[in-house]
Amino acid sequence: MANTPVAVIAGLGSGSGTGAATARLFAKQGYAIALIARGADSLKALSDEINTAGGTAASFAISSYGTTDINTAFTQIRAQYQGQPIRVALYNAGHGVWKPFLDITPEDVQAVTQTNIEGAFAFSKNVIQAFQANEVDEKGKRGSLIFTGATASVRGNVTTSAFSAGKHALRALSQSLAKEFGKKNIHVSHAIIDGGILTNLSRQRRNDPEWEQNEDARLSPDGIAESYLHLVKQPRSTWTWELDLRPAHEKW
Amino acid sequence: MANTPVAVIAGLGSGSGTGAATARLFAKQGYAIALIARGADSLKALSDEINTAGGTAASFAISSYGTTDINTAFTQIRAQYQGQPIRVALYNAGHGVWKPFLDITPEDVQAVTQTNIEGAFAFSKNVIQAFQANEVDEKGKRGSLIFTGATASVRGNVTTSAFSAGKHALRALSQSLAKEFGKKNIHVSHAIIDGGILTNLSRQRRNDPEWEQNEDARLSPDGIAESYLHLVKQPRSTWTWELDLRPAHEKW
Amino acid sequence: MANTPVAVIAGLGSGSGTGAATARLFAKQGYAIALIARGADSLKALSDEINTAGGTAASFAISSYGTTDINTAFTQIRAQYQGQPIRVALYNAGHGVWKPFLDITPEDVQAVTQTNIEGAFAFSKNVIQAFQANEVDEKGKRGSLIFTGATASVRGNVTTSAFSAGKHALRALSQSLAKEFGKKNIHVSHAIIDGGILTNLSRQRRNDPEWEQNEDARLSPDGIAESYLHLVKQPRSTWTWELDLRPAHEKW
Amino acid sequence: MANTPVAVIAGLGSGSGTGAATARLFAKQGYAIALIARGADSLKALSDEINTAGGTAASFAISSYGTTDINTAFTQIRAQYQGQPIRVALYNAGHGVWKPFLDITPEDVQAVTQTNIEGAFAFSKNVIQAFQANEVDEKGKRGSLIFTGATASVRGNVTTSAFSAGKHALRALSQSLAKEFGKKNIHVSHAIIDGGILTNLSRQRRNDPEWEQNEDARLSPDGIAESYLHLVKQPRSTWTWELDLRPAHEKW
Repeated sequence: MANTPVAVIAGLGSGSGTGAATARLFAKQGYAIALIARGADSLKALSDEINTAGGTAASFAISSYGTTDINTAFTQIRAQYQGQPIRVALYNAGHGVWKPFLDITPEDVQAVTQTNIEGAFAFSKNVIQAFQANEVDEKGKRGSLIFTGATASVRGNVTTSAFSAGKHALRALSQSLAKEFGKKNIHVSHAIIDGGILTNLSRQRRNDPEWEQNEDARLSPDGIAESYLHLVKQPRSTWTWELDLRPAHEKW
Repeated sequence: MANTPVAVIAGLGSGSGTGAATARLFAKQGYAIALIARGADSLKALSDEINTAGGTAASFAISSYGTTDINTAFTQIRAQYQGQPIRVALYNAGHGVWKPFLDITPEDVQAVTQTNIEGAFAFSKNVIQAFQANEVDEKGKRGSLIFTGATASVRGNVTTSAFSAGKHALRALSQSLAKEFGKKNIHVSHAIIDGGILTNLSRQRRNDPEWEQNEDARLSPDGIAESYLHLVKQPRSTWTWELDLRPAHEKW
Repeated sequence: MANTPVAVIAGLGSGSGTGAATARLFAKQGYAIALIARGADSLKALSDEINTAGGTAASFAISSYGTTDINTAFTQIRAQYQGQPIRVALYNAGHGVWKPFLDITPEDVQAVTQTNIEGAFAFSKNVIQAFQANEVDEKGKRGSLIFTGATASVRGNVTTSAFSAGKHALRALSQSLAKEFGKKNIHVSHAIIDGGILTNLSRQRRNDPEWEQNEDARLSPDGIAESYLHLVKQPRSTWTWELDLRPAHEKW
Repeated sequence: MANTPVAVIAGLGSGSGTGAATARLFAKQGYAIALIARGADSLKALSDEINTAGGTAASFAISSYGTTDINTAFTQIRAQYQGQPIRVALYNAGHGVWKPFLDITPEDVQAVTQTNIEGAFAFSKNVIQAFQANEVDEKGKRGSLIFTGATASVRGNVTTSAFSAGKHALRALSQSLAKEFGKKNIHVSHAIIDGGILTNLSRQRRNDPEWEQNEDARLSPDGIAESYLHLVKQPRSTWTWELDLRPAHEKW
């Protein structure tokens, strides 16, 4: 439908984590989904899954989180969902690097920087401009932009010099945007994900069925998506910029 | 009913703010409400209102947030709601003091201390002990304890030496409890309310109809209550300790 | 001498820690020292030591950090050092409680509260009023007030619910004072001591000669005192409110 | 002399700010100075000034804070000061961008990123490797690495989306390094400069003699340098990672 709102989600990893769960949940809530990610395969699979389940999704593969690639993806999104307002955007892209500092290469730094800074700025610019064209909705919002952060967003640590640099930068961007665009009824949030998320990738890596089944020990992508939906639903008088999310038994 | 869960709410101010809105919302969600506050009048009025609307509420007037008074209130609550599990607790008590430091009296310090520390410790002890007696519910929780904080919880400022001391202490307590009792599936949260809340009191004080009607400019107690309900509903795999809440146009 | 500046130091513990080292260092720098503490014995010993070494010190025993006791101590200090300006003050009092939350008694809460809040407010009020009577010195200051904090000042944790509540409150007070009185050229600072300090008490408790001798593993009181002296010497154009201090090998 | 310790300072701006003041102060303390900066003119002028005053300095002009340029500068420094240990390093490079978010260009983002991340990682790698080759000195250190931060290091704000992203990243790097290399007796610090610094550039921009002469209103580069020297002199048992610095009358 011409006025079905669009939710743009960037960053899908292996297609089974936070980005995917958020896509599924917002599709069920009636949003048309635009998926941006590097892995064309998992992109297509998720998009098909949502469409088969009765939702609407389209995928936009990018080869990098460089400015040009992001801009191209948004040009395609606008063409695909012509006339439909972008109302929700999730920047979930990441590039995890855990290494002793002296092993970090310029390429690692470049990868972290592109995902967390260059790509995040380009994504945010497209999103904010799209939101500005919207009327405020019944909740008093032109749109909701959410960033997925991590423990490393608020704490540098041994082996996270590059990762935490990127995540700190992303958090600073989100805070600046929240302050600048709150006044325009654009809601910007940042979630600190503090713990391991259950995804296909983490299942493989850990190979620990006990951990998988212990809901007190790892984050579920669906739980994260529910909190993202809550952020989107917050009325204009009570907006959250930042919340943390962790499993019940996480040590922190 | 014998197994209807109980929500205990301490701190009602003028009976039109965060505590009252949370009481109404949780009553609608099927909780039996126990109200603790100093002002017997507003207590009784709110309790009557909830009961008349088809909910269940009882009020427990205290003369101070001293340990003995809080313990007595919980004894009465346990008698009133015999056999019903306490599942939710909100510590919303506060004592606002905004004065230049040299005007702050020992009585101000004592009042801030009793509300934010003595009372909060006594309240939390009763609540945690009650929660420990519960089975985990379908969300994987024994109970949810929420503390209402303020900007002063994370920032001392001119005129807030006493107020921010109390609020910082309360936040530290909440973080310690979250870390100690998460492992026991007890969920402890802290909300930083960053802005003016629309209450009968703030209406009178400000006498500014424009501010009242501008939902972008002040927090609505109902909006806060919705975020508290979200915290209570978070599944065991994705719990928030802290979130901030402010109106869309708040400068921060 | 009539115009010898006075440094007031509250909190000496066993007389071999931060307070004592600071007293010795500032005595060597030419300050007349006023020592406030609960333990009359260690007070007297330290005062004698400083006087024997050619410095000037006087001790003011208190029975508690209650407002009245603190006020009385300052009355005595003003009588003792009549006409001499108080230029430096260190609030180093503390009351460590490390217990599971449910073991914390109302007396523990009261002790933490009195040391970190009631006493700190009373101490600060006397100090700020004394500073206000001073001319600015050649560094552009009326006086320097330093608070000793801890890791618990910025992080609540399992077993620190009471301790961190008190230390958070103290930090909030220090930040409020720094903001309110910077404009009056009164310099207020807060030091986060993050690690174990080598004192007679910690020597006894740990009974670990290796730890004692390993300067990379524990804080030395003299090192802390040197940083306090640096704070006092900072010129009006570059003041620090907060710094952290930890041994080289501390894990944090 | 063969064993005169070297202090490497990157980032000189107009040659009259923090970097220059630190170079002068450490030259007086007996360090041979290596200056890295983009503006060859101010570099040469400062180097000449220090040499004329009886100190030792050499300048290493770079065309960018790219990895290759930084590596080349260190190759030249090692050749210039053959056999002398690098003991102190200051990363003072910055690129200030204050613009509404939608005016920020990809080039702005790239400039901020290169200065605060790419260059900082390359600089730190050269420095840490140089420090690792040192014996611990009489203070128990292999070397001291200091980063100059800003208010934007801990707070994103309207008009600082790019600047604060870079500064947050730099702070995260510094914290990671402090934690990883403290164990190796390498001391890493971060200074939050919270206010305007008196430099030739700020003099010109503001054209406000009252501000210039009011030491309570602006930071003096010499004052900052004194605190940097204090960090370098801290003994192994009491190291500071982070401190803030602001003028006495700064509103914060």
